[in-house]
This record gives sequence, structure tokens and C-alpha cells, in this order.
Amino acid sequence: MAKEDKITFKISKENSFSEWYSEILSRAEILDLRYNVKGFVVIRPWGAMIMERMYKLYEEALQSTGHKPCIFPAVIPEENFKKEAGHIKGFKPEVFWLKETGDEKLALRPTSETAFYQMYNLWIRSWRDLPLKLYQKANVFRYETKATRPLIRGREFWWIEAHNAFATKEEAEKQVQEDIIMTEKVMHQSFGVPFLPMKRPHWDRFPGADYTIGSDTIMPDGKIIQQPSTHLLGQHFSKAFDIKFKDKNEKENYVWQTCYGPAISRILASVIAFHGDDNGLIIPYAISPIQLIIIPIFKKNNRTKILNQAEKLKKEFLNSGIAADIDTENKRPGEKFFFWEMKGVPFRIELGEQELSKKEACIFIRDTREKVKCRFPQLHKKIKQLGNEFDIRLIKKADAYFKKSIKDCKNKNEIKKALSDKKIARFHFCSVEESGSKCAEFIEKELQARVMGIRADKKEKPTGKCVICGKKANEIAYAGKSY
Amino acid sequence: MAKEDKITFKISKENSFSEWYSEILSRAEILDLRYNVKGFVVIRPWGAMIMERMYKLYEEALQSTGHKPCIFPAVIPEENFKKEAGHIKGFKPEVFWLKETGDEKLALRPTSETAFYQMYNLWIRSWRDLPLKLYQKANVFRYETKATRPLIRGREFWWIEAHNAFATKEEAEKQVQEDIIMTEKVMHQSFGVPFLPMKRPHWDRFPGADYTIGSDTIMPDGKIIQQPSTHLLGQHFSKAFDIKFKDKNEKENYVWQTCYGPAISRILASVIAFHGDDNGLIIPYAISPIQLIIIPIFKKNNRTKILNQAEKLKKEFLNSGIAADIDTENKRPGEKFFFWEMKGVPFRIELGEQELSKKEACIFIRDTREKVKCRFPQLHKKIKQLGNEFDIRLIKKADAYFKKSIKDCKNKNEIKKALSDKKIARFHFCSVEESGSKCAEFIEKELQARVMGIRADKKEKPTGKCVICGKKANEIAYAGKSY
Repeated sequence: MAKEDKITFKISKENSFSEWYSEILSRAEILDLRYNVKGFVVIRPWGAMIMERMYKLYEEALQSTGHKPCIFPAVIPEENFKKEAGHIKGFKPEVFWLKETGDEKLALRPTSETAFYQMYNLWIRSWRDLPLKLYQKANVFRYETKATRPLIRGREFWWIEAHNAFATKEEAEKQVQEDIIMTEKVMHQSFGVPFLPMKRPHWDRFPGADYTIGSDTIMPDGKIIQQPSTHLLGQHFSKAFDIKFKDKNEKENYVWQTCYGPAISRILASVIAFHGDDNGLIIPYAISPIQLIIIPIFKKNNRTKILNQAEKLKKEFLNSGIAADIDTENKRPGEKFFFWEMKGVPFRIELGEQELSKKEACIFIRDTREKVKCRFPQLHKKIKQLGNEFDIRLIKKADAYFKKSIKDCKNKNEIKKALSDKKIARFHFCSVEESGSKCAEFIEKELQARVMGIRADKKEKPTGKCVICGKKANEIAYAGKSY
Repeated sequence: MAKEDKITFKISKENSFSEWYSEILSRAEILDLRYNVKGFVVIRPWGAMIMERMYKLYEEALQSTGHKPCIFPAVIPEENFKKEAGHIKGFKPEVFWLKETGDEKLALRPTSETAFYQMYNLWIRSWRDLPLKLYQKANVFRYETKATRPLIRGREFWWIEAHNAFATKEEAEKQVQEDIIMTEKVMHQSFGVPFLPMKRPHWDRFPGADYTIGSDTIMPDGKIIQQPSTHLLGQHFSKAFDIKFKDKNEKENYVWQTCYGPAISRILASVIAFHGDDNGLIIPYAISPIQLIIIPIFKKNNRTKILNQAEKLKKEFLNSGIAADIDTENKRPGEKFFFWEMKGVPFRIELGEQELSKKEACIFIRDTREKVKCRFPQLHKKIKQLGNEFDIRLIKKADAYFKKSIKDCKNKNEIKKALSDKKIARFHFCSVEESGSKCAEFIEKELQARVMGIRADKKEKPTGKCVICGKKANEIAYAGKSY
């Protein structure tokens, strides 16, 4: 039997996460790593369909808060990049450049501030044009020099970037808070991925921003990864691109800007890592391309009868908005059970002679592995109820895991221990505002960890001294290992 | 008043199509041509939202015929391109290359055969893996040297590409026919764009294909444009990429392949060109981001009352699946009427004191400019019915125009006249199989027209002689002017 045909999974997520992760990506056909360009992957149908559903929920949330979609070119002239000094400095090493075809020197977009904002210069004239809230779904390109990791760090990835312009700083700052709420609503409440909204240290801002708030979450190997980040761009870009508006008194002002960037492919990595178990993927009901799989159990001469009933049920499920499918492949039922468990489909029902005569199905629930009986007429109602409970359970489990992953540390050794225990360290810290402080250097150089920042969603008051230098602590900071 | 604020349109589509087209793209905010890279445009929200709906209908049609979505990298190594000799020869002049970062020479995809098929080599092993039907939504890049035209010919455009592999030639040929049916079902029946399925002359095949069927349609200036094309790739690529499968007798064979490529952004050009009138766009009900716009008519002190009723109606429309919106801008009603007519929204209702007291609305219909009265409780039912009729009317009108645009020609002079009358010429022709025939040369060089090919959906039997050389005609061919 070829490796691709293996149907049982059984890899310990806890003990061998790295193996678990790369094996499940391939075996559940999320993606294929064998594309012959370093750092570029092929997303296979199962992965593409999950991402499609994740995009949909994100776009609904964006549109419901006044954002409109648009499509910008994938190429950006060098002259645009150069306009904001910090931005070009930060991104230049990661840019893929096109071979020159004429006078133009073109970059493949690593992010699209400098594409959007030259148009904002043309589109924004008056206070009536504000706020301007646009987003695009896009593939972006970064010439990563660090080791790439499937879905986590690639040279091409798939994201949404929202670019907003406002008349006042207050509105812009409010937007940053709204972005955090959107991450909470979509990534946490719908996809089940908990996170810490972290105001980044001064030295770790987005190139061209006043400040940056990253959404950090953790992988089972203790590595933190940054999910959607939101940036108060302030007036850096509006000054660089001369984006001015006339206020109600005809006075010209520069706009205040924010941008927000959820990377759907990277969030998928967290969805996989948080919810999966030793049997494979567990996909939240809200985003599973198949929410219920029907496995027909054939005996002699009953194939047509069983299939007819399966089709009838499937149609009823689809009509009531449940993504149901039937596995009609020529395989043993046991193989099919394992296969769909590995793919992470929330519910399975078997359909054989017994079920038909009783008009009752037994629903297998992927995460708890429990079985629940239900009469045919109540099935679609039951599945919806179970689907709702399924997602709530996944969120709760992820939350409990995440909460346990944050460790209060009273001194250097405790930080060291927390990090080696695959935790995020939380500790009193002198300041995240000073670039290149000795204390930050200690964490980053000595402990090989990253200062994630301070809470952006609430004020955490320090009550003691910096655990590194012993001076007065101004903040409570967080640190973790990153890939 | 700035140009952007102009609200009336009034450009003659018939007499000055070129001006009409570029003005409406900008005034209806479909796109912006001022992006500072030649051949690259920005799609604004109104354009992006229409395209979103077009993509959705196309994807539903693809999925209902067994296609699954996937996402491939935007870069393709030169070595892949080189594998199929005809393909590299055909596409090489149009490829954007990336600056080399290492040993790899990477192209920005102009089309993705050579990306997909190296993976098909890995994914296809047995007859059980066939047919394999995958598609991706993608931006593609072509270094066009001819003049670019917004949505029609750009250096970046947005399409779907479907890549299918089969066990037999028969199945592959059947797929080509299915693709034509899909173009008919989606582009014609849903978007209202009529076309001729044209089997291309031998010398005008897709690089690497056995034969190509293009879907040609016409613009109001008499120029033909190619819409979705489908290609019987045969075994050219499967041999180049060594894509083999074991049949039921364990015998190894090369797969048979097809590909199909509807360019959504280019189809949008045809939607705009066919349906619009001198007042601006007319968007088919099926794909209009706003299907019904509600214009509140305020008098003193009734603002809240009117807006409450407008919100109530909007909610009811949305609940019954009608994309309704309210224009609450601080403008005169007349301005709003013209604005939404120009944007092409199918229906408009005004909502003032009179409508509220009568509980009756007057529905303005964009294409016929008729008004229909309807009581509030029946409104959503009525709009759905009118929406259906709206699209049927657009299709019929486009069909009648298209039919009139095809002219039977008995000799060279009649072809010449048809072309100068902005028509497609239909005529007896010796052969489209011979590369570089004198007759084709006459049409292409002397008349500066393009031999479109012969009908692919039916056999048209010639009864006379080739209108160019006077020898026996083997085919009935079509020719037209292209951009």
C-alpha cells in the first residue's frame, strides 16, 4: 500500500508535534509541499475549501463594519515604496523584484500600503470621502530568508489587508480597537483560535507605523505565532503620499490611517494545531467544507435502496444549510470512518439496513468520539444543535489550553523555565518603549525568546520591579519562543 | 463641481463607444486607470463586488460538474515551462520574470498548466484517481506588448483556470463540449453575454493544445473579443510531464487533458458593453451588488419616520435574498436617481410621505425606464419576479444585437463591407487547417481581420466555393476585427 493510501493516522500531537503537523497537512490533503520552488506550496482542495469558508466569515465581518472590497495590482513600483522611509527600510530585504522590462522597477507586493495610498491621494478630497475603509483578498510575497514552514511562514501567503483612512486620530485609534474585536469575533469565536492582543515593543513596530498590535497565539510545541496584526499608521503614510482632505471649515489636514492584516493561510495553521488530535484534523463546524459525511453500509442487493435513502437525506441536509456528502467510494466502511476522522469532518452517520428500517441514525461526533441516536425527521435540527455545541466545545478546549500556556514568572530563572516548558512567560518589565534596552536584549539574546509586548485590550498594572534589571517596572510584558 | 461629482452621464454608446466605455468605467467607479504601472489597473468596490458575484456563479457551475478548488503558487520555474516545447514558445514573449534570487529562474504565471501538471504527475497513479478536475481563481500576468485596454487586455487579469485529466480521449473531448455548455449556461444565460463557440484555425491554437475552442463575442465598436476558451490538450503535456496512470488491466497510459479559462475581468467588459446605455451601466439582476436602491424623500420633520420605514423594508428585502440598500447621503433625490442609474442598479424605489401613507411603492426599472406600482407587502415577491424578467430582457436584447452582427458574405467585397460595418463576416472558406494559407493571409493581411474559425457547437456544411480563392470550400468560417 502506498503511503498516500494509509488510512489510520495515530501520531501523538503532544509528543511529536512537528511530525504530526507535517504529516497531517499531507495526509488530510491540506497542501502539498512538493512544488519545486522553495517556500511556495500548493493548497489542495480540502485546504482551499476550508480557507474559502474562513475568507467568507472574515469578509462578512469586514463588510458589516463598513469595509468594501477592491482589487489592487500585485506589482508596486519602487518609487512608491521609497516614499515612506521606514517602510522601505523594513521591507526591502524581503521584496521579490521583477526583471526590468522598461524603466520601471517593480516589486511583487509584500503588503500593499504603498499601492493603496497613492490612490487614496487621488480619491480623498473632502471630509465627505472619510472614513474610507477598503480591503482586498490577496496573495502576497515575501522573500523569507529564515526557514519557511507550511502555512506558517511562506514566500507566498494568502491574506486580507484592510486599509482605512480617517479624519481624526481618535477615529483611527477606535478602528485599531475595532480590529482587535474583529479578531476576537472571527478568529476566536468562529475559528476557535484564542490569542493575546499584544501592543508590540517600540522596536518591533510595523515599518511605517506609530504602533502595532499583534495577535499572538501558541502552537503545541510552545512556539508563539503572530496572527492578525493591526497598525496605527498615524500620519506617516498620509504625509509621504500627500493624502489630504478639507474639513468642514475648508481647512486642509492629513488623514489618519490604520491597516489590518489577517493571513487566512496562517490562521489555518492555528486552526489545525489547536483542534486536531492524534487521529488527525478536527475542523470547526462553522468552516468545515463537509459538516456531515454519510457512509452507506451495503449488503447484498440493497445498494440502490441504501443510496436512494442517502441521497434523500443529503438533499434534506443541503436544503437546511448543512454541508452533507455521501462517500460512495469502493472501500470498506472502516477505511472510510478513519479517512473522514482524519480529515476532521465534525459528524458522520452510517446508513445501512438497520438504520433504514428503524428510520434512525447514529451520529458519530468527531471530537468527543461519542455517538448520539436520532430519528430521521429530527436529524437536520439535531445536527445544527450539535454543530453549535461542537464549536463551543472546541473554543473552550482551546481556551483552557491557551490559559495554561501563560505562566507568571517572578525572575529570570522562572522565565527560562517557562520557555523550556513551552509556555509564554508573563513578567514585570521595565519598559517596552526603549529601543535596544539591556533587559530586552537579555530576553532576546540570552534566552533566545521574543518580547511579545504588553496587553492592548486592557491595562495591566505592574506592582513590583522588573524581573531582569530589578528597577521599577512600568509594564507587565510577555515573551515566548518563536519559529 | 469636480469631474468626479458629475451625476448625469449621457454619452452615446452607439456613436462614441470608446469614450462611453472609458468614461463609464471611471464614473461608475468600476476601476481606476491612474495606477502608475502600465497595463495594471485598480478595481474599485463596485467592480470588485460585481466580479465577486460573477466568480460565485462560475464556481457553483464548476463545482456542480465535479470540479474542486485549489490554490497554486503564482510563480513557476523556467524548467517547468521548458518541458512542453510549444507552450514555452507561445508564452515566452509574454512572461514577466522575477529577478533571480538564487539558482531559480521564476516566471510570474501567465497561465498555470506547467504548475498544475508537475503535481498531476505526483497525484495521478491509477484509473481510480481519474478524472481529476481542479480549478483555481487567480490573478495572471502577461507582458502584453500590444496596447492594453481596461478589463479587455491588461498585464494582470483575474480569471478561473480549470485543469482536467481523463483516462480516455473521448472523455476529454466530452469535457471540451461540457466547457462550451458551461460558457453558455453562465456567461450567456446568467450574465447575458452571447457568443460564438469557435474552433480556432490550426495556426491559432493554444500553445501546447491539439485544438482550441474560443468563445467570441463582439463589442459595440465591432471588435471581437475572445471570452472563455477551452483546449483539448491531448497528451502533449502528459507526455512532457510524464503523467501516467495504470488502467484496470494494470497497463500504463498517459492521461488525456483539457483546460478551460474564463477571465472574469474580461467578461465584465462584455457585460458592461452589451447591456449599458447612454445613461450608464445596466447590471444584470443576478450579479448586481445592489439589486434595489431605496431613495428616501424627506420633508420637514419626517426624516426619522421615513428612515425607519426604509430600514424596515431593507431588512425585509435582505431576508428574502434581495440585495437592497438605502442612499442616505446628503444629496438631492434627483442626483441620487441619476447616480444609481449610472451605476446600473436594476431597481429603485422612492420612499416619501405619500408612499408611507399609501403603503405603496413605485418601482423604477433601469433598462425600460418604466415604473410599476406595488403595495408594500407584495414588494419582495414583485422585485424577484421583475428581476427575473429584467435578466431575460437583457439576454434577449443582447442576442438580437449579436445576431444582427453576423453577416453572411458571398465575396471578398462583402467581407470587407461587413467588417467596415462593424460586423462579423461569415463566409465559405477553403480550410482553417492549413497553416499560412493564402486565403487566411488575405483576410489577416489585406483586410486586417482575424479568422475566428469554424463553429464548434454544430457542423455547418459548406455548399459552395471559398469566397477568397474560388476553390472548393471545406468549411464555413468567421472573421472579425480585433483590438
